[in-house]
Amino acid sequence: MIAKPKAGKAALQRLLDAEEFIRPWRFKIVSVGDGTVTVMIPLRKALLRPGGIVNGPALMAAADVVLWLAIKARHGIAYDALTSDLNTAFLRPAKNVPVYCTGRILRAGRRRFYGVAECHDKDGHLFSHHTVTYVQPA
Amino acid sequence: MIAKPKAGKAALQRLLDAEEFIRPWRFKIVSVGDGTVTVMIPLRKALLRPGGIVNGPALMAAADVVLWLAIKARHGIAYDALTSDLNTAFLRPAKNVPVYCTGRILRAGRRRFYGVAECHDKDGHLFSHHTVTYVQPA
Amino acid sequence: MIAKPKAGKAALQRLLDAEEFIRPWRFKIVSVGDGTVTVMIPLRKALLRPGGIVNGPALMAAADVVLWLAIKARHGIAYDALTSDLNTAFLRPAKNVPVYCTGRILRAGRRRFYGVAECHDKDGHLFSHHTVTYVQPA
Amino acid sequence: MIAKPKAGKAALQRLLDAEEFIRPWRFKIVSVGDGTVTVMIPLRKALLRPGGIVNGPALMAAADVVLWLAIKARHGIAYDALTSDLNTAFLRPAKNVPVYCTGRILRAGRRRFYGVAECHDKDGHLFSHHTVTYVQPA
Repeated sequence: MIAKPKAGKAALQRLLDAEEFIRPWRFKIVSVGDGTVTVMIPLRKALLRPGGIVNGPALMAAADVVLWLAIKARHGIAYDALTSDLNTAFLRPAKNVPVYCTGRILRAGRRRFYGVAECHDKDGHLFSHHTVTYVQPA
Repeated sequence: MIAKPKAGKAALQRLLDAEEFIRPWRFKIVSVGDGTVTVMIPLRKALLRPGGIVNGPALMAAADVVLWLAIKARHGIAYDALTSDLNTAFLRPAKNVPVYCTGRILRAGRRRFYGVAECHDKDGHLFSHHTVTYVQPA
Repeated sequence: MIAKPKAGKAALQRLLDAEEFIRPWRFKIVSVGDGTVTVMIPLRKALLRPGGIVNGPALMAAADVVLWLAIKARHGIAYDALTSDLNTAFLRPAKNVPVYCTGRILRAGRRRFYGVAECHDKDGHLFSHHTVTYVQPA
Repeated sequence: MIAKPKAGKAALQRLLDAEEFIRPWRFKIVSVGDGTVTVMIPLRKALLRPGGIVNGPALMAAADVVLWLAIKARHGIAYDALTSDLNTAFLRPAKNVPVYCTGRILRAGRRRFYGVAECHDKDGHLFSHHTVTYVQPA
């Protein structure tokens, strides 16, 4: 376990802003800790499905990205791993609110990382729960 | 089991094109059958993560949408259900190719629908495998 | 949220000992809290797969049972719900040790319960991580 | 893809009967094909939860074992891999009937195997659907 992140909040935010496949979500990094990252998904009309509910793929994309960032925080921006599994349970609709997503690495093997991500409101009420596995290609 | 879809390819494509939260993916409906829908994700630079790989959330969004469409094909455009669970295994990177996603309902209960979605190339080689549960709110 | 369990440790242990489909695992209840239960799987040769590893179905059975008990602790022994989904990630082999399994309800809807279970050693090192959904039949 | 199994039905049944951690389920191998195995779980009172329903861990154990056997059928009895992920959706209770479980490898990498298992009755009606990942230790 590494106490001091190898990549901090500013560097990770620059990465999100630079990558064309992520930029459209406009994720804002809220905090970076040891093995944990929180991002915010700003509320935008373009994210809402009928009923004013933030669409599910936005939450899954956030879950995917927070673990990706948590791994890079530990190992450095250049370290790349690919998602191998991502399981999602949608627990409560996120209606017309900004969504926060917090990821946390639970188990770091040599090449396999397993963690949990939770999408929640600013008070911590859960919208969705995710488990995510990343694998570093051989 | 209903042999004749209540909503066909043209109506479902209009729905995809009308919904702002889906439109950015530019999914094209390829085919609609009884309990099954295939869409195509056109290859665009904006979808690629480093290495020229179609990003995972695009595949998960496609998996989510094909089951949503398969349910509407059976029950009509106005019938709405919400995703409750979506599990994804990424099996092989989709490198610089259009991706097809085929969803199929395996079990339709009164209010719960369970199905499988597969993202694949035009020859059927798998990129990802998904299980998806939709629930109609009470 | 109910602070005081409707069914306590002794009543839940009697249930485990009385049910023929659970008894063979010989689960011992370690603790019962609000929305959380921990059981112990005693080490027995009959549980070991080649390599001295506690077999996976034993861990999945424990994950299934701790959420079942956590729901009964809250709603009473007579309240019955059925597992609808159980996702498991095996993180590290449990070699020749007793295994503890702790379940916790994360979200209780009217009829749907979602929780997490973790199998771990006595010091909290993870062997497996599970998400479990129970649904009360209509 | 290997057309002829390296381990056939008789050898795989002997393995099931010899392993103490599997034997109690009394799985009977029904058929072995290329990348696919079907087993039968004989109906026994000891497997039933309240309501006469075959208990969930029995179905998960069967899902786990059919993929394990499908890998051994391809690579030989001595080839061992460990389950890394097993996701289960329970779709319909199996009430007082023998259960069949059919597993099929969908993707075989160098060291990672991904497949689907389905528990069903003799006519193919689904009780549960599983996705299973096996990994050969380094």
